[in-house]
Amino acid sequence: MLIIASYDVATDTRAGRRRLRRVAKACESMGQRVQKSVFEFQLDEMQFEQLERRLLAEIDEAEDSLRFYRITEAARVRVKEYGNIKAKDFDGPLLA
Amino acid sequence: MLIIASYDVATDTRAGRRRLRRVAKACESMGQRVQKSVFEFQLDEMQFEQLERRLLAEIDEAEDSLRFYRITEAARVRVKEYGNIKAKDFDGPLLA
Repeated sequence: MLIIASYDVATDTRAGRRRLRRVAKACESMGQRVQKSVFEFQLDEMQFEQLERRLLAEIDEAEDSLRFYRITEAARVRVKEYGNIKAKDFDGPLLA
Repeated sequence: MLIIASYDVATDTRAGRRRLRRVAKACESMGQRVQKSVFEFQLDEMQFEQLERRLLAEIDEAEDSLRFYRITEAARVRVKEYGNIKAKDFDGPLLA
């Protein structure tokens, strides 16, 4: 299934900036960055649970937020993107 | 249909900060903020075109990025959210 994950991490402290780096790193290891704080993943249920556990271990739920969209029928999703996708590290998005 | 829109606006200049405010304001007028730069919308095709035109008129495509997910079968989307949703202005998300 397609997972879209987005996060807001409070970066007004050094600890927050560290959480942000660690969240981004965990997402990068399993998925495709599409914006600064938005990632796409193609995962099965077990992998999704693993991702979720990993991110929940990193964020501070009092300060940060984490949001997942789980889309089980990817064919019904169309993506449009505009502008300069600076945050993207590698070839294309999972969806085009 | 459900639209998820996310944006990255380069805020290192005064003009960029102004674009960010204007993009956020346009999104707020039609949808539900769920994170700092992620919004959800329930729109028909015409409304979506209107939103798209409005946001494209605001962003600088050389500097910013704008991303839309159009999901025509909302029942197939499940949302999980964690943490402190500071950016949310009103009652619940469109999806729960």
